[in-house]
Amino acid sequence: MMVGKNRAWLLTTRPTGLVGREHFQWHEDPLPAIRPGEFLIRNQWLSCDAAQRAWMQFDTYIPALPLGTVMASGAIGEVVTSKHPGFAPGDLVYGVFGWQDYAVSDGSPFGGLVPPQKLPPGTDAITAMSLFGIGALTAYFGLLDIGRPQPGETVVVSAAAGAVGSIVCQIAKIHGCRVIGIAGGTQKCAWLRDVLGTDDAIDYKNEDLAVRLAQTCPDGIDVFYDNVGGAALDAALANLADEARIVLCGAVSGYCVTPPEVTNLINLIIRRATMRGFLVFDYLDRSPTAIKALAGWATEGKLINQVDIIEGLEHAPDALRRLFTGDNLGRQLVKIAD
Amino acid sequence: MMVGKNRAWLLTTRPTGLVGREHFQWHEDPLPAIRPGEFLIRNQWLSCDAAQRAWMQFDTYIPALPLGTVMASGAIGEVVTSKHPGFAPGDLVYGVFGWQDYAVSDGSPFGGLVPPQKLPPGTDAITAMSLFGIGALTAYFGLLDIGRPQPGETVVVSAAAGAVGSIVCQIAKIHGCRVIGIAGGTQKCAWLRDVLGTDDAIDYKNEDLAVRLAQTCPDGIDVFYDNVGGAALDAALANLADEARIVLCGAVSGYCVTPPEVTNLINLIIRRATMRGFLVFDYLDRSPTAIKALAGWATEGKLINQVDIIEGLEHAPDALRRLFTGDNLGRQLVKIAD
Repeated sequence: MMVGKNRAWLLTTRPTGLVGREHFQWHEDPLPAIRPGEFLIRNQWLSCDAAQRAWMQFDTYIPALPLGTVMASGAIGEVVTSKHPGFAPGDLVYGVFGWQDYAVSDGSPFGGLVPPQKLPPGTDAITAMSLFGIGALTAYFGLLDIGRPQPGETVVVSAAAGAVGSIVCQIAKIHGCRVIGIAGGTQKCAWLRDVLGTDDAIDYKNEDLAVRLAQTCPDGIDVFYDNVGGAALDAALANLADEARIVLCGAVSGYCVTPPEVTNLINLIIRRATMRGFLVFDYLDRSPTAIKALAGWATEGKLINQVDIIEGLEHAPDALRRLFTGDNLGRQLVKIAD
Repeated sequence: MMVGKNRAWLLTTRPTGLVGREHFQWHEDPLPAIRPGEFLIRNQWLSCDAAQRAWMQFDTYIPALPLGTVMASGAIGEVVTSKHPGFAPGDLVYGVFGWQDYAVSDGSPFGGLVPPQKLPPGTDAITAMSLFGIGALTAYFGLLDIGRPQPGETVVVSAAAGAVGSIVCQIAKIHGCRVIGIAGGTQKCAWLRDVLGTDDAIDYKNEDLAVRLAQTCPDGIDVFYDNVGGAALDAALANLADEARIVLCGAVSGYCVTPPEVTNLINLIIRRATMRGFLVFDYLDRSPTAIKALAGWATEGKLINQVDIIEGLEHAPDALRRLFTGDNLGRQLVKIAD
């Protein structure tokens, strides 16, 4: 990277199918100047989240990202210059700084949701973006607050080898549940069973999901933690236990095919079940509690923090695409500077 | 009706589309004898419930009704002979006694759910089957326990002119909500507005439901009480307020077209909404409270109890069909004897 230049990916096209390079345009600008009240961050790490695909396509809890602007993304970077009283050069900061080398911030929250956050000196950026990041907090609050799993209950997790799913599986095991992970491919399923310790794993690419759910959950599913939607949700709906809880965390399948069709909702009535959507942003005031728990479990060796790192800003679109092709294992990050 | 003969409708075919006469066979038998511990009821009134269509077709919270047996149905009748200590000739009894003149009961609950219940002397059968019946209790507990409407919130009700919906609309008004009813036809919509006092009504047969929901609920739907499923649910999902509650009571549309497709579930996430199915049987221990409230509102003139009566056991299949063609207004009953 040349000093004095800001490289960025602009969003230029809204995706209708799989997200990829064709929706972005590489762009180079001079290094931006800062005004009073602002600070300049040099990004080091970008996170890849399935929600970014939704931000690109339509209005969600934030308006659709404007075309022609820098692609939004969680990032960790170092403050290089500052005219803001709360941020000083050398500070390590987390924020939604986008797919670019340098970002200017005035400290205001992205979409009204997540303000830039100064990280304690000595913070490991990888851990901050994975074990203590949005994905892990989503796993923690979604499973425990919405799913409310009880010891001995059967918890099924879709996209179980992803950033959120892999943490959900492990927290459910820590809480004494039977855990069945759903993932694509024999390797991921072996990893779920052998490394994460799930009681079983279903390879949706090579097995009949509805049949395998019936086999592995003979007493029905008590908690379904859903990152996928569509056919996976429908198969789970067909196998609910009475008073089941369905945690709607994401709808990856719905981001790529428009629209996903769900036909078994009547089972919510028959099973007196609850399906609930949530956004992690509503829980962030309790993140210190969650981070303390996650850190404790990791220290005790009960929680494996799997990350998947791609290097180079130029590969950011490919890294995001991996979430939807299923190529990532655990938390997908992009390293763009030291 | 001839004394000494029991006329009945047997279920002979499982419906896949609209339910009708073709799924039943008329059957006549001698009057059944009772054994010790049993009593004989002469049915006077039959109730028509959309759930009966589901019982005919597939396993629900009870196994699918066996083919070749008397069609199951809520009924009120008079005990004519008894070898059961709890029931005496002349008692008025509610139970799932089926589409027949005479039923034998040993007092055990239908499907483990609803035991025969002796009604207080002087009970008006029509009121017992409508204002105090399963439909009204379903309206009461579904709206208040699952929907939890707050004054000023917007409540939308599908199948609003039916047995359950018409009571839901009125209880929501009593609780200070803005109420929008969805029904088929200008007459029903005029009845909802002018007689039940809903703030607006949408004629789904002649209006664009999604457009009209957006118009009538500019701040979104806080509570959607759904008796229909399918396209109505999907349109409501597209118009949710934050933290909306969707009460899944029934899926009439799903009983008649297999399967209904719902595509907007992602909005449960975006709106942090909850969708919950329930069965009224779980709440029956609290029915005295509900009946007291319903009776009070009716006495005060705040609650209109609309019934729709067809006469003759021979018309039972047609009466049930009316729920799915939308011909009934309020609670559909069949009178089969004085």
